[in-house]
Amino acid sequence: MRSRGKSLKAKDGKLPFCAMGVSSVIHPKNPHVPTMHFNYRYFEIEEADGTKQWWFGGGTDLTPTYLNEEDAIHFHKTLKEACDKHDLKLYPKYKKWCDDYFYIKHRGERRGIGGIFFDDVDSPSKEEVFQFVKSCAKAVVPCYVPIVKRHCHDSFTPEEKLWQQLRRGRYVEFNLVYDRGTKFGLLTPGSRIESILMSLPLTARWEYMHTPPESSREAEILEVLRNPKDWVH
Amino acid sequence: MRSRGKSLKAKDGKLPFCAMGVSSVIHPKNPHVPTMHFNYRYFEIEEADGTKQWWFGGGTDLTPTYLNEEDAIHFHKTLKEACDKHDLKLYPKYKKWCDDYFYIKHRGERRGIGGIFFDDVDSPSKEEVFQFVKSCAKAVVPCYVPIVKRHCHDSFTPEEKLWQQLRRGRYVEFNLVYDRGTKFGLLTPGSRIESILMSLPLTARWEYMHTPPESSREAEILEVLRNPKDWVH
Repeated sequence: MRSRGKSLKAKDGKLPFCAMGVSSVIHPKNPHVPTMHFNYRYFEIEEADGTKQWWFGGGTDLTPTYLNEEDAIHFHKTLKEACDKHDLKLYPKYKKWCDDYFYIKHRGERRGIGGIFFDDVDSPSKEEVFQFVKSCAKAVVPCYVPIVKRHCHDSFTPEEKLWQQLRRGRYVEFNLVYDRGTKFGLLTPGSRIESILMSLPLTARWEYMHTPPESSREAEILEVLRNPKDWVH
Repeated sequence: MRSRGKSLKAKDGKLPFCAMGVSSVIHPKNPHVPTMHFNYRYFEIEEADGTKQWWFGGGTDLTPTYLNEEDAIHFHKTLKEACDKHDLKLYPKYKKWCDDYFYIKHRGERRGIGGIFFDDVDSPSKEEVFQFVKSCAKAVVPCYVPIVKRHCHDSFTPEEKLWQQLRRGRYVEFNLVYDRGTKFGLLTPGSRIESILMSLPLTARWEYMHTPPESSREAEILEVLRNPKDWVH
């Protein structure tokens, strides 16, 4: 919320607000097709003295079960291009924000290989931020759909499916323990639970002390989740 | 923690403590065998002036996929008998505490059909509370094992397994969002994550807007999770 940076003046304990957003999460069945999530949102708050605070937030991020460098580069490059049209500083800043935000602290891992994430953005002007957010939203399909097309017919083994399910367990842990939107939603009386928890995967798995063998493909993605990489230079 | 009821006097910002406990969670594969959880624990804290605070906590609770009244009565009756040996007030108090504690607020449901739960218990005397906790711990096997024996060879359909998986999703929601021990553990730097999250089921499932048909066996258990019953009179 905007209140992270500024104090808001309520009137009679009330703070009229207007919020809108679009969210989507795709958890494919095939472990070679990564999970993708995006959300873009706009908030407006009217303070006691009639002044309006407004801000945009959002992001797009990828959660693969196995690392595919070509996919990772394509995903980040497409996001960078969308950002660069507006300001060259945006992609590096929001890429880092994404790595920091989607952090499963108790595991020392990120949820996925990132993308971009931002919040409380209210400069340089409403129109300019809106144009930027539109560019991000328009980048969702070119970011993700080529990756889906490349892998949706890949065959997979039961072991690969099992690793996907364990990774989905981590996705659940992030969303239920850390995600601000989810926590805020669950605490809001009368909120629509099904909309909030639609981000969870169809199925997930937990195994006690599961550790992939060294130099395996499972260890390879874990390494990147523990130490995020720069995918675009 | 004891600090819920009393303020503790720290010395140089430190509060030496000693904690011990035993926890167990069993998530059977067969949907006709309920999940069972118990935990019994003891805490000791030394305050700045050298006085020691101590207390016991714990409980045993049952989470069936389908309601079996005979099982529910057996489970609660066995717990009641263990409590009644010490004080007739204990079972009703700790039964209610259990229903209140294992509440998934955003769903309006309890995690299961309850049992007993208590915390911060430090009276009438350390020895008497210890005897009571021992009685509870000794009741775990007679509470649960007859239920396992009665159902472990029951056959089940894919639909029953699916409903079990959806209920396990709720179990995950409770443990990650509300359970005090889990939240405290995840926030403690250097805590042993695998020990904390061993309470999660092997597998779980989420479906958007899943609602069981009226008068189904799935609706029957939901009704009891929404409106806890007295199983023993």
